[in-house]
Amino acid sequence: MFCSGDPTMFKEYWERMGDKSSITITGWQSLSYFSNTSNICWFLEPEFEKEVRRIHSVVGNAVAEDYHIVVGNGSSQLFQAALFALSPANAPHPMNVVSAVPYYSSYPALTEYLKSGLYKWAGDACNFEEEEPYIELVTSPNNPDGFIREAVVNRGKLGKLVHDLAYYWPQYTAITAPADYDLMLFTVSKCTGHAGTRIGWALVKDREVATKMTKFIELNTIGVSKDSQLRAAKILQVLSNCCECARPGETENFFKHFRGQMTERWDRLRAVVKCSDLFSLPEYPVEFCNFFGDFFEAQPAFAWLKCREYIEDCESFLKSHKIITRSGRHFGVNSKYVRISMLDRDSTFNLLLQRLSTIIQNTH
Amino acid sequence: MFCSGDPTMFKEYWERMGDKSSITITGWQSLSYFSNTSNICWFLEPEFEKEVRRIHSVVGNAVAEDYHIVVGNGSSQLFQAALFALSPANAPHPMNVVSAVPYYSSYPALTEYLKSGLYKWAGDACNFEEEEPYIELVTSPNNPDGFIREAVVNRGKLGKLVHDLAYYWPQYTAITAPADYDLMLFTVSKCTGHAGTRIGWALVKDREVATKMTKFIELNTIGVSKDSQLRAAKILQVLSNCCECARPGETENFFKHFRGQMTERWDRLRAVVKCSDLFSLPEYPVEFCNFFGDFFEAQPAFAWLKCREYIEDCESFLKSHKIITRSGRHFGVNSKYVRISMLDRDSTFNLLLQRLSTIIQNTH
Repeated sequence: MFCSGDPTMFKEYWERMGDKSSITITGWQSLSYFSNTSNICWFLEPEFEKEVRRIHSVVGNAVAEDYHIVVGNGSSQLFQAALFALSPANAPHPMNVVSAVPYYSSYPALTEYLKSGLYKWAGDACNFEEEEPYIELVTSPNNPDGFIREAVVNRGKLGKLVHDLAYYWPQYTAITAPADYDLMLFTVSKCTGHAGTRIGWALVKDREVATKMTKFIELNTIGVSKDSQLRAAKILQVLSNCCECARPGETENFFKHFRGQMTERWDRLRAVVKCSDLFSLPEYPVEFCNFFGDFFEAQPAFAWLKCREYIEDCESFLKSHKIITRSGRHFGVNSKYVRISMLDRDSTFNLLLQRLSTIIQNTH
Repeated sequence: MFCSGDPTMFKEYWERMGDKSSITITGWQSLSYFSNTSNICWFLEPEFEKEVRRIHSVVGNAVAEDYHIVVGNGSSQLFQAALFALSPANAPHPMNVVSAVPYYSSYPALTEYLKSGLYKWAGDACNFEEEEPYIELVTSPNNPDGFIREAVVNRGKLGKLVHDLAYYWPQYTAITAPADYDLMLFTVSKCTGHAGTRIGWALVKDREVATKMTKFIELNTIGVSKDSQLRAAKILQVLSNCCECARPGETENFFKHFRGQMTERWDRLRAVVKCSDLFSLPEYPVEFCNFFGDFFEAQPAFAWLKCREYIEDCESFLKSHKIITRSGRHFGVNSKYVRISMLDRDSTFNLLLQRLSTIIQNTH
């Protein structure tokens, strides 16, 4: 399952943490649809809101004060809520939705699957020439290639931006400044590894946009599981606690632990890849991380692997060697590229390295 | 909050049940996106699937064997998944979506909010004359009026049916036969009262339809909270256990307990209403219930109240007396009708009766 990005690597850490991060939900809890009727996002659990604000303040990766928080069933739903909120209801044409290649492979499908009259997929942001309103999706660090990104269209008031910051956490990249964009998306899946809870959140500057996003989620799913919000609150609480209390050298600090794991995985992957010129990997700049107080280069959740020229279809080539990846074609580029998950469990990651090594040895 | 149907009435029962229905979720559980990769619905927790099949078999309200189960973030999401699955992807015109008046007030908005090119709201099924493909929504017992319903258009192969059976449980109506329609929607919100879990399920006869519904939920929210599925499984398990083990006369049987509560509430409401000719309520036929083995008449989750002719706008009239309801206009009929929730907590229900009595006394 290298293709899906299932974050099973994190499981072992949470096992070691033991019952600290467990929760019990009684049968008589959370029956109501409502969590907080005085909040714009009336289905947002106060405990979850509190822990979201706290983790951003502890990590320093985003400004959360003065932002509205909208909770979603994962950040995919929030992405759709953002399109709904940022597209005028009565425009003569659907809003253009663009993102620079390589872009997250689900963006085109999520924009198109309902053939909405509100918005339409308009492809690579770098080729967007129309003098028309648009929404630009900025994923930073980028999925699939891990680079830090800025908007590329920059056409003033015509444009609205959605920043998908799912991977802007210190196990993956240097936290260089707290992000303060108009609309930022986060998810526990990539932060703590709890993909099965389906909990994401948006930090939204504008009250009206937050209201429309809330309306979308009300129509789409009448809110978001309270059980999972309470669980995510607990997990985030443990995370903030461990950041605030861990003494130097302690491995209990979640981000430190996984920064170490990711460094090790990337070192091992690069060591295998550089044994030949069959494959290549991106190089990332070294940046100062405010959270750790030192310099390091990005070690993304995905490896964006490029094959040598004579391999036309890298996905098929790797598949024939039992390595399942996702082709560059899905990300708006060519089939010389594939995306490989770096977040699978140890045994699976070891298998990946083994199989890559075998390919390289046999091609020599 | 008489307008929303928030099922807070059920809380007191679950409190009395104590820890039997509690669950503990450890920090290292359910990290993965996947629940069962060998199932069409790959995010369906096996434990939840088992308990869904069991409760239908215990209650006898639907045939679940040989049906695919698709889990959703509430039945609203499953309703949208059904529209997506039943509308051809490349049809020249959007599919017509119809339902007989009075229909569930959210159907038009859920069909229209994204201006989909796949389907469109075509209004009252009784007025649908086009010789075109259509999807008919059959809600039975009906929301808002509580009547048992059948499809009304009946135009052979042109039509596809979605049966919303959220209220087909023995606290509300006699279970006369196990339903065996092509596509049936259920939700824990109305069955057990756990609206905050956002868990619904579809029983789907056709494999391809189940596959397309699963695809919708994959795109829409990448699956459904595992935490809530596990919790819903536990609640349904307690429910099935109490039905199978409760001795005659015991109040622990959930359905028996709430059938009693609903009978009492309806008796009290009817007693208040019949003191004058200001308001009227529907009368339901007496039917034999296979689950209880006796005859009784429906006692729906909503009261569908009609005002006397000289009150033009029943919702405004009641609002001026501090009773918040939802106007018949939202259900495709006129403003002489309102829908009132019968599932609120005791104190709120008592307040409703008090205020209705006061109106009636003052109008004499």
